[in-house]
Amino acid sequence: MEIDPIAHIKGCYPEKFGIPRQPSLVPEAEATIIFEKPYRHENFIRGIEAHSHLWLTFGFHQNSWHEGQAMVRPQRLGGNKKMGVFATRSSFRPNGLGLSAVKIKRVDYERVEIIISGHDLVNGTPIYCIKPYIPYSDSILDATSDFAEEAPPRFNVRFSDEAEKTLTILTGRYPQLKPLIEGVVAQDPTPKFHKDPERIYGVLLYEFNIRFKRDPLDEMGGFLVLSIERDLK
Amino acid sequence: MEIDPIAHIKGCYPEKFGIPRQPSLVPEAEATIIFEKPYRHENFIRGIEAHSHLWLTFGFHQNSWHEGQAMVRPQRLGGNKKMGVFATRSSFRPNGLGLSAVKIKRVDYERVEIIISGHDLVNGTPIYCIKPYIPYSDSILDATSDFAEEAPPRFNVRFSDEAEKTLTILTGRYPQLKPLIEGVVAQDPTPKFHKDPERIYGVLLYEFNIRFKRDPLDEMGGFLVLSIERDLK
Repeated sequence: MEIDPIAHIKGCYPEKFGIPRQPSLVPEAEATIIFEKPYRHENFIRGIEAHSHLWLTFGFHQNSWHEGQAMVRPQRLGGNKKMGVFATRSSFRPNGLGLSAVKIKRVDYERVEIIISGHDLVNGTPIYCIKPYIPYSDSILDATSDFAEEAPPRFNVRFSDEAEKTLTILTGRYPQLKPLIEGVVAQDPTPKFHKDPERIYGVLLYEFNIRFKRDPLDEMGGFLVLSIERDLK
Repeated sequence: MEIDPIAHIKGCYPEKFGIPRQPSLVPEAEATIIFEKPYRHENFIRGIEAHSHLWLTFGFHQNSWHEGQAMVRPQRLGGNKKMGVFATRSSFRPNGLGLSAVKIKRVDYERVEIIISGHDLVNGTPIYCIKPYIPYSDSILDATSDFAEEAPPRFNVRFSDEAEKTLTILTGRYPQLKPLIEGVVAQDPTPKFHKDPERIYGVLLYEFNIRFKRDPLDEMGGFLVLSIERDLK
């Protein structure tokens, strides 16, 4: 069947790299749900603030599935083990539909926008459905998963003097930027197969490129944020 | 975008009437997920038994949304109050996509089928995506909803002598039929605006028509199952 976006996401993650693997891992991440016509009318969302959280059914618009690809290597299992695509939340999947629970921060009826937090979606992601999270049926207390029983560990994040200085300048316009960087880098977005401890990574947040590397002073594998640079791409 | 069913549901509910309003309310309800080609290959579901529950993204194939219909009257609120369609789980919605968490009962790799329980889907429902339920991110303990904070009440269900006799005959082939009837009728599937206490209702389960009415002996509004008849439609 043919489905059309009802909305799209305007958010802090310009590209896939660095986005937490599940929502709620970085609660500081904010985004706005901007409705498409004909859904850009307050009546479509009337009463939505009765709920604390929403389910978003979205499109993995930057990924495409190759027909016949039955199995994937989830990052979660170190990229070594193959599993059936329907046994995973891989973004490479038939129909390309994603599912994400996010928190409602504020509803703007005048602009017909919903401001959410704790999202895990690339800027521009098309939204195909929005539904309230209903605790009594969605929060399944006896559910188990051998595959991802617990949230991934959070690593320590330290900021260089240069990075701290830039944050001081930016704090007026981006009050949440520091905890957002901490949350994103603490997830360890670096590829598992990279072994060079000196390698410098960059993750885009809003219009900034956050440059970071393994912290040589942290034996637990934490990170050092080197600089925050305006991305001129 | 164009999406195609990856599977369809073969289950105990031949029609919409009587289906619980959320999954998990009637755990006795069983169904089988039957894959379409090219997904009818065991590799697509390899490892799925690592999870106890699944998310099904499905199509409300028996309902169609009327363009411009921004608000609905949720049954949950007695059908009196209007809410924005995206503030509800109404089955009449743009794109017609549903979402349901179900329990995995058994995985049949040879037939490439997944047997589930606690489902709330009409027989024949098309499935567009299957994903594991990941407890650490899907079970949101601080989520709230003023709209549907608690599961609906369960009413008492009593069986007539005739109904009990029929159940005894059917119990070999349908060992779960009695608790399934109890679960479905206990939800009170009757329309809120019906006031006639003598009215007899029928709900289809598998190939049977379950006839029931308000139990005149129950002051709490429970039900009496009158008969279980093979449906000849």
